[in-house]
Amino acid sequence: MQVKEILLQKPDGQDIVAKGWVRTKRGQANIVFININDGSTISNIQAVVEDGVISEDILKKITTGACIAVTGKLVASAGAGQSVEIIASEIEVYGIADETFPMQPKKHSLEFLREKAHLRFRTNTFGAIFRIRHALAFAVHKYYNDNGFFYLHTPIITASDAEGAGEMFRVSTFEANKAPLAEDGSIDYTQDFFGRETSLTVSGQLEGELGALALSKIYTFGPTFRAENSNTTRHLAEFWMIEPEVAFYELEDNMNLAEDFVKYVIKYALENCADDLAFLEKRLLEEEKSKPQNDRSELSLLDKLKFVVENDFERITYTEAVEILIRSKPAQKKQFQYEVAWGIDLQSEHERYLVEKHFKKPVILTNYPKDIKAFYMKQDDDNGAAPGPTVRAMDVLFPGIGEIIGGSQREDNYEKLLKRVEEVGIDPENIWWYLETRKFGSAPHSGFGLGFERLVLFVTGMGNIRDVIPFPRAPKTAEF
Amino acid sequence: MQVKEILLQKPDGQDIVAKGWVRTKRGQANIVFININDGSTISNIQAVVEDGVISEDILKKITTGACIAVTGKLVASAGAGQSVEIIASEIEVYGIADETFPMQPKKHSLEFLREKAHLRFRTNTFGAIFRIRHALAFAVHKYYNDNGFFYLHTPIITASDAEGAGEMFRVSTFEANKAPLAEDGSIDYTQDFFGRETSLTVSGQLEGELGALALSKIYTFGPTFRAENSNTTRHLAEFWMIEPEVAFYELEDNMNLAEDFVKYVIKYALENCADDLAFLEKRLLEEEKSKPQNDRSELSLLDKLKFVVENDFERITYTEAVEILIRSKPAQKKQFQYEVAWGIDLQSEHERYLVEKHFKKPVILTNYPKDIKAFYMKQDDDNGAAPGPTVRAMDVLFPGIGEIIGGSQREDNYEKLLKRVEEVGIDPENIWWYLETRKFGSAPHSGFGLGFERLVLFVTGMGNIRDVIPFPRAPKTAEF
Repeated sequence: MQVKEILLQKPDGQDIVAKGWVRTKRGQANIVFININDGSTISNIQAVVEDGVISEDILKKITTGACIAVTGKLVASAGAGQSVEIIASEIEVYGIADETFPMQPKKHSLEFLREKAHLRFRTNTFGAIFRIRHALAFAVHKYYNDNGFFYLHTPIITASDAEGAGEMFRVSTFEANKAPLAEDGSIDYTQDFFGRETSLTVSGQLEGELGALALSKIYTFGPTFRAENSNTTRHLAEFWMIEPEVAFYELEDNMNLAEDFVKYVIKYALENCADDLAFLEKRLLEEEKSKPQNDRSELSLLDKLKFVVENDFERITYTEAVEILIRSKPAQKKQFQYEVAWGIDLQSEHERYLVEKHFKKPVILTNYPKDIKAFYMKQDDDNGAAPGPTVRAMDVLFPGIGEIIGGSQREDNYEKLLKRVEEVGIDPENIWWYLETRKFGSAPHSGFGLGFERLVLFVTGMGNIRDVIPFPRAPKTAEF
Repeated sequence: MQVKEILLQKPDGQDIVAKGWVRTKRGQANIVFININDGSTISNIQAVVEDGVISEDILKKITTGACIAVTGKLVASAGAGQSVEIIASEIEVYGIADETFPMQPKKHSLEFLREKAHLRFRTNTFGAIFRIRHALAFAVHKYYNDNGFFYLHTPIITASDAEGAGEMFRVSTFEANKAPLAEDGSIDYTQDFFGRETSLTVSGQLEGELGALALSKIYTFGPTFRAENSNTTRHLAEFWMIEPEVAFYELEDNMNLAEDFVKYVIKYALENCADDLAFLEKRLLEEEKSKPQNDRSELSLLDKLKFVVENDFERITYTEAVEILIRSKPAQKKQFQYEVAWGIDLQSEHERYLVEKHFKKPVILTNYPKDIKAFYMKQDDDNGAAPGPTVRAMDVLFPGIGEIIGGSQREDNYEKLLKRVEEVGIDPENIWWYLETRKFGSAPHSGFGLGFERLVLFVTGMGNIRDVIPFPRAPKTAEF
């Protein structure tokens, strides 16, 4: 039985076996208390070893980090902090942990624990994070399944570049510096494994659209890659992305889906991870105490999550947002580092002002200038509301995180799409299959992408994205 | 409302809008019938267009493959084959499909459809396959979530080689043939993105074990890669694998988990995909008619699935299997291509004999010779039952598929594991983190891997693995 289940039992002296890793051992005269955790829950089960029951030989081996099985009787606990405990009659030591075990019971820095990513799951903080990560992932699948979406596994190795962006990892079986050459001196990729140049995908969207234009409602949930040399607390070279794509959805439907979806998964975590969230909230409060009063959050972690679940997201156009920003105090006082003008790509400082100062809630910005968005976004009819051409894009901005979702209605007009493809310099031959869906039974459709780690970051309240994925991949970082 | 939901409505002339792709249009005097499918279900909704209601201009555009929205009243259908239909009052054409649309209503070969993978989702067969694939994937997550497992995202880009196998895809940001050299003339990987040589993972197991030795029960479900030049109906270069890993599980628990799990997901498909499975069963029966009597399956698709769900898997050791094979008719008559002897890696012909002829049900083979299995498998105590040293391995063999699951109890003894690592020629420094888990709180643990596409192949009854993944990756194949 797992510790989580044992803690739910009604104690009446029944026989029980608890298996797990020793967190602490405290000795008093004639009695020893051992706290055991098996990762099923943040709580430990306490084993009580009365004098003479377990041999000194075995007791000596029971140190922090050791793995043991305790057999005994489950009784109500007299001590504070737990409702039940085990009166041990037998202990088996599966594996010892000598004094070189790095996770001794004291505070470790997150930096130190990142170097011990193979063991950090055994700490309270990382146990909580990865149980919450699981719950969020399951909530994603449950939400889409319950709403009639089909999970589509789009390819990881790809010969196309969804964003027209560039920074991709090359995938090859050529030996380094020994790729064969074609007659004209270029690399002869016809001899490579796939017979062409291939990379790791940056998005499953284009293939997702193929699925949506047949099955109506699909979503992806898989790894995506960026070979950007960004060593920040917000970027990973390998991260998981969720990309729903829906036929017959226009921009408004897409916004409704995004808001409903993200509220659902956060609510799911609130309902299913109460213990772990309470622990992380406490951890965060401790951490905040070391900050100056001004830099502390106005809301606690749980309050922040509840606030997002309970309030409507603000929906405004990019054009309206720029007007707000131009009239804002920081703009008047020239406190923004980047000047605001219609047509610029909004910077983090602008997004934060809108979300954290002006509206004080999540914001969905829509109808961005065409020139700062991807080629596949549907062009707005020119209705005079904006100074220049716009597209049906939407970005969902979250407090502390910034952009958590980016999406759009997709261009479904063949001629307009082809023109944009050519304008941005993509060879139409490379994505003939994508273009063909606009020739054969095209339909209005929309979708978005949510970076899963940014969601986990938001829900756990952690500050560094490397702490919410088991084994982070980043520049010069591929250990484990 | 999606077609699936419309078909469940009680028809009493209510207003309804159906959106989807035209499968067929049949005209009679004064009346036109249009069959529309939106991928939500294998069934179509029929729209009835009475004389003069819709302009000829619009009707002309409604051909197979066009995408339309039909507005009208939902009534009970007089015709055979559907219970409700829509009496159209208005039709909007979203996208036409001219006569070059490749999916015309006639039989297409699977080979042809593979070249049209961007459109094949719109056929009955592939609609059914990918809805079933979704249901199986959801069942996987639901099974593990309901049983207290945590979903662990193990890394895709890796600097280690879990199987010690070799055939991996290289991942790099070096320009082809322009990798910088170190002083000794070797490639200077310290200048590559990750500062070392990296590849695409062949398995998440080693990292999965790190999770299990802290969280107790974890599973992975993600893409894995093999750069094998195998152009077969059973191999892909990119495929999805499910790998549970459980602390405190021994081989027997591992077998119980594998059997319970695979039965659960097949049962889930039987209960949730009845329409699609019925369609694929019919398709298979048609296909079988063209085969000689002897080559036809004894069981229909549904009977085969029910048989697996309802019967215990046979569990025998490798040593017992070899004895059965040596005594078998094909061995006596020298009909096996490869001779059977203790110590050989069993060939497909041997596995098929055991599963399809001898036991006529799924078989779990255990306790294989150490020399033909991976370094991380736990060594059996020498109990004299086998002619040589064995490990606590298990392979689950399925009719028609062969090995669908491979797993083992893992070596948890540090010295034994280190010795095997060195024997097979892996540099211990490369997996120091893996070895360390056997130094600090080691525990008995077990796990297995299930190739998701092989499961989908089995459940759908399809013959080629490229037909059960949206966009297959194989030698010379990376289109879409």
